[in-house]
Parts: sequence; structure tokens; C-alpha cells
Amino acid sequence: MEASQILRSAHKIAIAGLGLIGGSLALRLAERGRFVVAWNHNDRPYEAARSHRIRCVDSLEELAAGKPDVLILATPLAAMPEMLARLAPVISASTTLTDVGSVKAMVRRQVEEAGLADCYVGAHPMAGNERSGFAAADSKLFDGALWALSVEESTSYDRYLTVADMVTQGVGNAVITLNDEIHDASAAMISHMPHVVSTALSAMLVDSGNRNVEAALAAGSWRDMTRVSLTDPDRTMAMVEEDAVNVSALLRKMAARLGTVADSLEQLDGMDATEASVHGARQELRRFFQSPEPFRAYKRRESDVSCPAAHVHGQQGQAGERDIVIPKQGWQGYLLGSAQSGERVIRFTGTHAATVVTRSL
Amino acid sequence: MEASQILRSAHKIAIAGLGLIGGSLALRLAERGRFVVAWNHNDRPYEAARSHRIRCVDSLEELAAGKPDVLILATPLAAMPEMLARLAPVISASTTLTDVGSVKAMVRRQVEEAGLADCYVGAHPMAGNERSGFAAADSKLFDGALWALSVEESTSYDRYLTVADMVTQGVGNAVITLNDEIHDASAAMISHMPHVVSTALSAMLVDSGNRNVEAALAAGSWRDMTRVSLTDPDRTMAMVEEDAVNVSALLRKMAARLGTVADSLEQLDGMDATEASVHGARQELRRFFQSPEPFRAYKRRESDVSCPAAHVHGQQGQAGERDIVIPKQGWQGYLLGSAQSGERVIRFTGTHAATVVTRSL
Repeated sequence: MEASQILRSAHKIAIAGLGLIGGSLALRLAERGRFVVAWNHNDRPYEAARSHRIRCVDSLEELAAGKPDVLILATPLAAMPEMLARLAPVISASTTLTDVGSVKAMVRRQVEEAGLADCYVGAHPMAGNERSGFAAADSKLFDGALWALSVEESTSYDRYLTVADMVTQGVGNAVITLNDEIHDASAAMISHMPHVVSTALSAMLVDSGNRNVEAALAAGSWRDMTRVSLTDPDRTMAMVEEDAVNVSALLRKMAARLGTVADSLEQLDGMDATEASVHGARQELRRFFQSPEPFRAYKRRESDVSCPAAHVHGQQGQAGERDIVIPKQGWQGYLLGSAQSGERVIRFTGTHAATVVTRSL
Repeated sequence: MEASQILRSAHKIAIAGLGLIGGSLALRLAERGRFVVAWNHNDRPYEAARSHRIRCVDSLEELAAGKPDVLILATPLAAMPEMLARLAPVISASTTLTDVGSVKAMVRRQVEEAGLADCYVGAHPMAGNERSGFAAADSKLFDGALWALSVEESTSYDRYLTVADMVTQGVGNAVITLNDEIHDASAAMISHMPHVVSTALSAMLVDSGNRNVEAALAAGSWRDMTRVSLTDPDRTMAMVEEDAVNVSALLRKMAARLGTVADSLEQLDGMDATEASVHGARQELRRFFQSPEPFRAYKRRESDVSCPAAHVHGQQGQAGERDIVIPKQGWQGYLLGSAQSGERVIRFTGTHAATVVTRSL
């Protein structure tokens, strides 16, 4: 009974923005039997969308007036304030608002400014590629994807569960539940800061007197490390700016680490090198190059085990699944701890019960 | 007449070390009609090698005694001093010594210490993968590869030409000609320093309290930027140590660049931010994210044009080919300038004549 209630809870889903992410999500949810209504601001790929059982409407206001269970803002972050201001007077109390933005604290601030904090649950699907627009949309973009949901103390558990149902049952993806601060700091670590590092590498080559020699000698390591520096600089800059505080803190740490390695390397054949100082420097270097070992072990295990999304697609009872009970009080902290320990929710089995798999370092 | 002389100049080729690189090179040269003799230190994959028309001998001394035109040291860098000491008393004056090491200054020092500087020409083929040993050897490893040859003022032009013939006609690859200093600084830029950066990224995640969340959220950019940090840490450390001076200098520059970006990001919403300071910071950031543009344009052109190796494989007269005349005096500086301008030699057409293609930023 409870499980079927959950199944129904996010049936009608409205999507504002039929770009790569919004479009792929619309295709996926419609394909998997949800009732999907969409609106797009500029171009209107409505004929193509309708052929995939996506209902299309003429305005954002009409989208909200349909009283969807979930309304997903899949518009660019820069358009958020305008979207939210237009939604505020028309959104139904029964609609839960969410988004797919790559930063969460900034979006929540804008949601709060529009007076919509009560109905909001943050979301960030780990899916995408270098393309854009509905023409590039593909329901397979969400194969095996993981979603981060972001909640705060004030978030309604019912609304959280509605969005979590949409992700697990609707999209068929796994979920981790964070708060804005930890989401944004983590996104800075694995994406925003590395984009700056990649850009800095390319910029160093461009500024080098031997750039043509270097470009000629460049092989796999250089290609991999500079790939993201080749993407749209405006989009990268916007992404980094939106998470500026976290990115700058990580860049300082990164710069300090590189400086420490440079120190050790300079001690290897410095003017005042002694046997002891060379030995010490080499010890430091060995520690440094060994230090990623837990991540290496994690990646080795990852390539051994089946992807968690496989579970969601119906292969139940596989090794590593575990049932959890989500407390009524302090559920946010409980789910954050679960995510920090490496657990990923692959399905909800009741209002306060879920199944997780664990991938941890 | 001249061109056919060149064709014959590196006919008998001896290879010390039948690992991934030495083995692949032996297969390739034998496949393309050169007379190949090989020796391996530890295991003896001689049966497999012989089935590919590679003659195998029992000792390094026997390899040298056969008076090959070229003797290639394809042994690990750590084994170089011992190999060179054993070769010094037995190598014929008619044999040109070369190697395939990823650093060149250190190898030349060892060659000089062994008293073999007169017969030496440095070489570094841009080929390889994560595997090792003759079992992984494949002549296709050299498809489209580029070689850097490294020469100094004292290098014999005849010996240079012998090695260059082996690479262009023998292996079927393009060549750029550098000196040790520029080779090692360039290798530090495009490989050795980025390996440190990649390792530092992985190490930061390992040290983070949110490492499991970060590993869960990690997508394409993180995977690409940390891939080389997953390879053998001892091998990476050895590579970085062998080019320590160049790597530490580049790490300092990299750290300074990241610090400058952090400065700009902190000015965006610092306590003392003014409209002017925010505008200035944003200008700086825009300049930074735009700065890889020449490299982006180079990569776009690269994916448009056919690979230079295609020319070597016999498709003559294609667009972009140009004939050069190599001066008898100052040929080292002339060829270095050619490489720095983006030219790659795809074939020698006479003792002092060659054809180049250009790929430049």
C-alpha cells in the first residue's frame, strides 16, 4: 500500500526547458509511463516532443496552472530569477518545485527570494555531454546516472519523497541526499576546480615559447587533462563563478600541494643537498605518489562490480543491497550520513524504508 | 642516388630490450623489411620474436659485435648505466647508438660518462600504452606516432641522418629534431608535470571528508583528469624525478596561475568588493578562460586535417607539404627552429633535403 502510494506520488511531471537535460528527462519519464508536460522558452521543438508523448504548452504559467506533482526547472541558471518570479503567483500548493542546476546554494537563495522555499527540493542529475538542445536529447543520457538531492532543515519530507520517487521509479536512477553546502563543495572538487586546472594547463602551453613542440609531443595524458579546457569558456566561467567560494578554497589547496611537490623535487639536486635531505625529499615524493591509493582501489572495485543502476532496472536481491529505515526526525542528517558513508538509494520500499548499495573509498 | 643511399643507411638494426616499446619497434622494423637483431635481459620471448623474422642473440655484447648500423637501447632508464658500461668496450665505430627514453639530458650524461657521446643520437618515440612486455608488443603501436630526436652541437650529422632514416623510412613515422633541454622541458609540460597535477587531484579527494560523496558525483571531467594518477606510482615518480628541475619549475608556474584565479574569485564577493573591483575580477577571469583559445583552434584544425603519418605511408603531394633544405653548418639550430615553428619532417629526399608538414598554434 505504502509503496504504491509512492509510485503514484510523482505521476504528473512538468518540465520547464527542453534543452539537452530537460529534453532527455522528458523523453525518459514519458517512455517510463509518467505524464509529462513541457514548455520551452525560445525555440519550440514541440512537434518532435509531442511525437514522444510529451504534452507541450505555450507558457510557463500554463505549465504551473496544470497543477503538476513536480515542476522541474531545467532552464539555464541565469534564467532562474525570472522563471521563479513568474512562477511564484501561479504555482499550486500541491506542486513540488525542483531543478537540475549544477550548484545548489545559489538556486536556493533565488528560490527563497521568490518566496518559494516551502515547495522546493534541490536536485542535480549527474548526466550530460558536450551537446545541447532538444535535438541532442536522448532518454539514454540517464542510463546509470546518479542524482544528488539537496535538502535543508526546513525541507518537507513528503516533497523530498515525491522528488526521490520521480528519480528512482520515474527515471530509474539512484539517489544520494545532501545539503547545499556539501553538494556545492563536492561539485567544486570533482568538476568546477578541475575545469580551472585544465584551463590553466592549456593556457601554460599557449604561453610557452615551445608550444608547437609541446603540442607535437602531446599524447594521452595531455589530451585527457586538457579536454574540458576545450569546451565553451563562457559556460565554464559561469559554472566556476556560481561556486566561487568553494572553487577558490580548493585552488589554494591545490596550489599548496603542487608547491610542496616542487619543494621536494628541488631538494633532490639543490645546492645544499645532503644524503639525508635527498632521502627525506624522496620519502615525501613516495608518500605523495602513493597517496591516491584508496581512490585507485575504489576504481578497481568499481570496474569489478555491476553498476548500481542495474539494480534500479529491476534486478533485485543482488549482492551488496541493504535495507535502511529513514527516521522521521532528523532524516536529513541521517540521509547525509548515509551518502557520506558511500550509500546510494536505489529504491524506496515504503515511506520511511529504502534499499541502498554501497560504494566507498 | 642520394635518396637510395639514405634508404640503405640504417638497414641492420639491433634492439636491446624486447618490452612494449622495443618489441613493437622490432616487429615494425622487421615487418617493413629491415634486418632486426634483438636481445632481452630477463625473460626470453625469443620463439615468438623469431616467428616475426626478428633474429635473437644471447648477450648485449653479441648484439654489439654484429656491427649493426643502429643499436637502440629500449631498456628501462634505471638499467642504462650498466648497459652503457657493457657496450663501451665492444661497440663498433660504425654503429650509431640511440635510445627511446622519455628524458634526454639524463641519458646523455650517462652516455658521456660511458665515453659513448660520439656515436649517440637521442630519440623519444611518442608511443606507448599502459601495458608492458613483449606479449603486449604490436607494430601498430607506432601507427601515426611522432618521434623527437635530440641532438647537440657535437652530434654527427651522418649519425643523425642514420637514425632519422630509421624513423621515417624504417618505422614510417614523422620526426622533429630538438636538443635535450627543449625536449625535457617540453616533456615536463605535456606529460611529467600533468602527472603530478593528476596525482594531486586524486590525493585531494582521498583527503576530503566528503570523499564518498565526491566519488559518487564524479563524472567525465574528473575521470579524465585523474586517469594518469591511477597508473603505477613508482613508474610515475621515476619519470618525474628524472626531469625534476623542469617539473618543479612548471609546478611553481601552475601554482601561481591557480593562485591568481583564486584571487579573482575571492574578489567577486569579498567583504571589500566594489563595483569596479568585481568588474576587474570578472575581466581577469574572462581573460583566463579565453586564454586557451589558440590551443582550441589548433585542436579544431587537427581534427580537420589528415594525420601526418598518412603522408609517410606514401600518399605524396598532399596539401601542406613543403620541401626544406638543411644547411651543412648549424643544421641543429635550423632543425630546432623548424620544430618550434610547427614543422614535422615526414621524409628525407636527399642528404640535406626533406619534406615537412606544418601543425602550429
